[in-house]
This record gives sequence, C-alpha cells and structure tokens, in this order.
Amino acid sequence: MTQNTPTIRDIEEAHRRISPYIHKTPVLTSTLINEEYGAELYFKCENFQRTGSFKFRGATNALEHLTGEAAGQGVGTHSSGNHAAALALAAKQHHTEAHIVMPRNASAVKQRAVEQYGARITWCEPGLDSREATYREVEKQTGAHFVHPSSDEHVICGQGTATKELLEEIPELDVVIAPVGGGGLTSGMAIAARSMKKGIRILAAEPSMADDAYRSFTQGFLIPVDRPNTIADGLLTSLSPLTFKIISNYLDDIYTTSESAIIQAMRLIWERMKLVAEPSAAVPLAAVLENRFVFKDKKIGIILSGGNVNLDKLPFAPKKQDK
Amino acid sequence: MTQNTPTIRDIEEAHRRISPYIHKTPVLTSTLINEEYGAELYFKCENFQRTGSFKFRGATNALEHLTGEAAGQGVGTHSSGNHAAALALAAKQHHTEAHIVMPRNASAVKQRAVEQYGARITWCEPGLDSREATYREVEKQTGAHFVHPSSDEHVICGQGTATKELLEEIPELDVVIAPVGGGGLTSGMAIAARSMKKGIRILAAEPSMADDAYRSFTQGFLIPVDRPNTIADGLLTSLSPLTFKIISNYLDDIYTTSESAIIQAMRLIWERMKLVAEPSAAVPLAAVLENRFVFKDKKIGIILSGGNVNLDKLPFAPKKQDK
Repeated sequence: MTQNTPTIRDIEEAHRRISPYIHKTPVLTSTLINEEYGAELYFKCENFQRTGSFKFRGATNALEHLTGEAAGQGVGTHSSGNHAAALALAAKQHHTEAHIVMPRNASAVKQRAVEQYGARITWCEPGLDSREATYREVEKQTGAHFVHPSSDEHVICGQGTATKELLEEIPELDVVIAPVGGGGLTSGMAIAARSMKKGIRILAAEPSMADDAYRSFTQGFLIPVDRPNTIADGLLTSLSPLTFKIISNYLDDIYTTSESAIIQAMRLIWERMKLVAEPSAAVPLAAVLENRFVFKDKKIGIILSGGNVNLDKLPFAPKKQDK
Repeated sequence: MTQNTPTIRDIEEAHRRISPYIHKTPVLTSTLINEEYGAELYFKCENFQRTGSFKFRGATNALEHLTGEAAGQGVGTHSSGNHAAALALAAKQHHTEAHIVMPRNASAVKQRAVEQYGARITWCEPGLDSREATYREVEKQTGAHFVHPSSDEHVICGQGTATKELLEEIPELDVVIAPVGGGGLTSGMAIAARSMKKGIRILAAEPSMADDAYRSFTQGFLIPVDRPNTIADGLLTSLSPLTFKIISNYLDDIYTTSESAIIQAMRLIWERMKLVAEPSAAVPLAAVLENRFVFKDKKIGIILSGGNVNLDKLPFAPKKQDK
C-alpha cells in the first residue's frame, strides 16, 4: 500500500494504462427527473463498468503497476464486495492469480462472480479480525501483493478516471458528487475535478448510519466508523489516513442521507432511468433530492458507482395503493 | 386508421419528423453475456426512450400527421399500457388533448404515468367490449382522432425508426429481432431492415402462451390470439390485417418462448446488463438463448422494447442456494 498523494498527471497516466481494459461508460440524464426537480443531473454509469462497479478501474491500475517478481506472485485482498470481483477480473486479464479472502456469510451471488473470474477463494469467519488473520496466512503462503480497496495511490488514480471521463464529456458541470465509503472514489474524483475545472463544487454523500467521513471531515481528525448499519453495503468502511488527507484538502462538503431517502432515490433510478443501481450508488441522488434548494438550477455530475444487487432481496416495499 | 403498406421512405420521413422529440437511444452490449453465449448481442435500449418504451416513436409520428381541424380535436385510444402513456406525452408536446380509455384494473403506476402527462382518463370495465364501447362514447363527445397502437401506417413508421437507428450504428448485424404483439414494432423493423441491409435475417419472438403471430405466420392466415396468458403483458394483442400482411411479406421467422425462459432472460438483462427491462422486452433474448446453435457467432440486434415494470411485483423467485 503506497501512501503518496496522487496528482492529475497520475490520473492521466492511469487512464492511458487502463483504457484498453475498461468500458468508457455512458453519461445518462433523465428529462423527467430534471423537469421534476429543477436541476440537470448527469449520471456517470459505472454500473455498466466491467464487474458492475467503478472498482474495476482502480484494480486494473493496481495490476498495471505490478512488475517483475511481484506480478508473478499474484494479488490478494479480503473483501466480500465489488473490490473482490474487480481484482479477480483485473488479475485474470493480467495473467496472474487473485487470492480473495471472503467471509462465509458473503452472498452466493458475489461468490459466483469472484469464482467466475477465476480467483482463488479462501473462506474466513465474518468480522475484520478473522478476515485479516486469514489474509495474513494466505499472504505468507503465496507472497501475493495486497491491493487495498481504497487506501492505495494506484487505486485512487484508477477511480479518478471516472470523473475525468465525466468532465471531458460534460465540461459545464457546476457540481460533482460521489458516495463515500473508504474514500478511494471520492479522493480520485476530488483530485481530478479540482484540477480540471476551476470553481466546481466537489461533494460526497454518505449514509447517516455510517457517517465516519462526515464526522472526520467536519471535526478535522480521523474518526473510524462505529457499528455502521446501512442498506448501502458498499459504504460500511472507514476513511484511511491517506484518503482522509485528500478529502480534507480537496472536498467542499459531505452530505449525509437517511435510509429511507436512499431507498427512494434508488427506486427513482430504477423506475425513471431504467437503470439497476445498488443502494450505495443511490446515496448521492438521495443527498441531492433532500437538499433541493442547494442544487436548484445546477448542473450536477453524479458518479453512479455500481449496480450489483441481489434481485431476490430488493428493498422496495409494496405500496398499499398499488393494484 | 390508415392501411397502406409503408416503405423505407416513409420511415425516413418519420425519423426526420420525430427526431426533435425522441431520444436517440444507446445501443449496449455485454462482454460477459457475449463471451458466455458465443455471439455478439447488441441491445437497442428503447427502455430509455421517453415514456419508457418504443411506443413514443409511433405515437409522435401519428401526432405529426394530424393537421387542421383533426389536430384541434385531440387524439384518443383505449389502452392500459405503454401506448397510452406514449400518446399522452406526444399529444401534450403537440399542444392537443389525449383521451385515454383505461380499464379500472389498470395498475396505479400506469395510471399515474398517463395522468402525469396531462391526458384525460375515462374509466371502463376490464375487457375489450367495454373498452371499445366506452371509447366510442368518448369519440362521439370529443371528435378525437383514434390512434391505434399498432395497425396504423404512421405508428408503424415511427416504430421502424428504432431499427433504422440500430442499423446505422451497427451496420454489420446478421440478424435483427423484436418482440411481437400487435405487430407495429415488428412491421416497422422488417420494412427498415429489409431495405437497409441485403441478406439480414429478420426475426420476431413471441411468448408460447400468446402465439397468434407465430400461428398466423406459419399457417398463412390471420389467427387471433385466444385467451393469452403470459407475463409479457405488452404482447397480449393480436396482429391486424395490415401488420399480418407486412409480417408475412418481410419476416424470415418467428420464435416462440416459454414463460420461464422469458423470466430467465429478464433476470440476465437486469443482473448482467444492469438494465431495467419489462418482460416483453426480454422475449427476444429468451428466443436467442433457447436456440443457441442457430445464433452462434452471429451479430444480433435486439430491440429492447421497454422498461415499464411494477417494482413491487417482480417475477424473480428467491433461489434456495442464495444466502
């Protein structure tokens, strides 16, 4: 895990390196939502990214920077989520192995995705202690290079390419906003946007039920998340010293959102935009809709971070008036 | 309702007329699905079309051809589905009224869509008899011009513009395939594709549980649908003499699909492509997946017809092995 603060030059280099592997995802807008809410919302559709989330950008850039002996010994991480699938496919495409430590209670859907990309799974008990202990064992046996899901300069630069593409396509944006969990996506966005467009407002959105980034940002020191409990399962992790430093330096503000606002925003994206987005990806729209007066008449770029959901466990409650 | 067989010139004119109103929808492809199934599938995403389905193309073209006194008296139809919402918005944009006869058991979601676009709703009892009788009453009172959902040359030409855009973007297609209900979309597709590309195979897909087009096509005379019972609620209607004539002349084949294949294809579109598609829109993919040997290594253009679903009533059954 490297700890330097990257620059826009590093993001530009990352973009050159990962372009042969990633999808240049489309930017979509909804006439109906824009008319109803009095703003112009542009969604950078990373749910269409390979492996279903932006994580593939950062994982691919991390693999691109592995050289020599390190590359031969493969990469590894502990994750039950999008980073695991992203690292698995990136490793496969770079002809090396991925070693993924997954908790036994990870969903079968996510397990299948990681297996499908040819990664080696080692099971552990749920909880960070078991994950880290099991991973150390795997690392000792394989020599795999650890790729952190967010606190890694190559990962941050990879994630920043989503914002670079967004601002190249829609340069007139007034605001960019992304969901914040470990802070890799937000850090990459902030570095790219601050350098590419003077005066743009750079925001993050976070569930109130996992508001460590908000509290760290407003209080000025790193406060780890305490028993997070949100439907946005991609945002359960805390900032690291590296991502906290970048976010403190570059971000204008962080908005927190309620669980019901997240579900309502997710429903709007599915119903009106016909896009499958995961709860974490709906958090920025929830923040925009809950603070309408702030965003009125603005051109807002939203990083729609991913679309990996279990279709058998959707949060949409049947409404009584519906037949 | 006009009954002439349109030509590619009429579709080109339709495209010029409706372009200021419609979305030029994107064509998406999934690396994962293509690799897994050994074919190249290109989805023309009419779920992103205004009002959530291709129907807005035909309705807009019908409105474009209303002139003088007829235009002042508005348009009307009886429908509980996508055509109603499409006609409502097209009428609003052409500054005239839409009169929609809807059965009392239409879903609240669809009712809200039609109301949102400012149409006047008249309620009737479920069943074609009540719909037609109620509509005649509305027509007598308002003088509204009836716009049939499929058996109308302007509607057919409007729907044909989706295939025109698809073939302009991906000219190397070997096959185009659309779902068939009343036959408006299929007729427009067939006229456009036959004229634009020599040797292309032109196919339709239909639920086995509503297979009137298949039986009419194979037996050579018009056989109306008999008690259709399919999850593909956009495909419950029968061909008309006009659409039957066009389909008989231009189509290469019609495939029928089981209900479980439709649900499986719909799930694949949601899970892998992150697109919200309605069951009718999944019928062509179901046909392709059920006849893999026919489509192997082919470049296949699929009209993803619409994305209007009730999120509270999804057909995905929880799988036992999923945690």
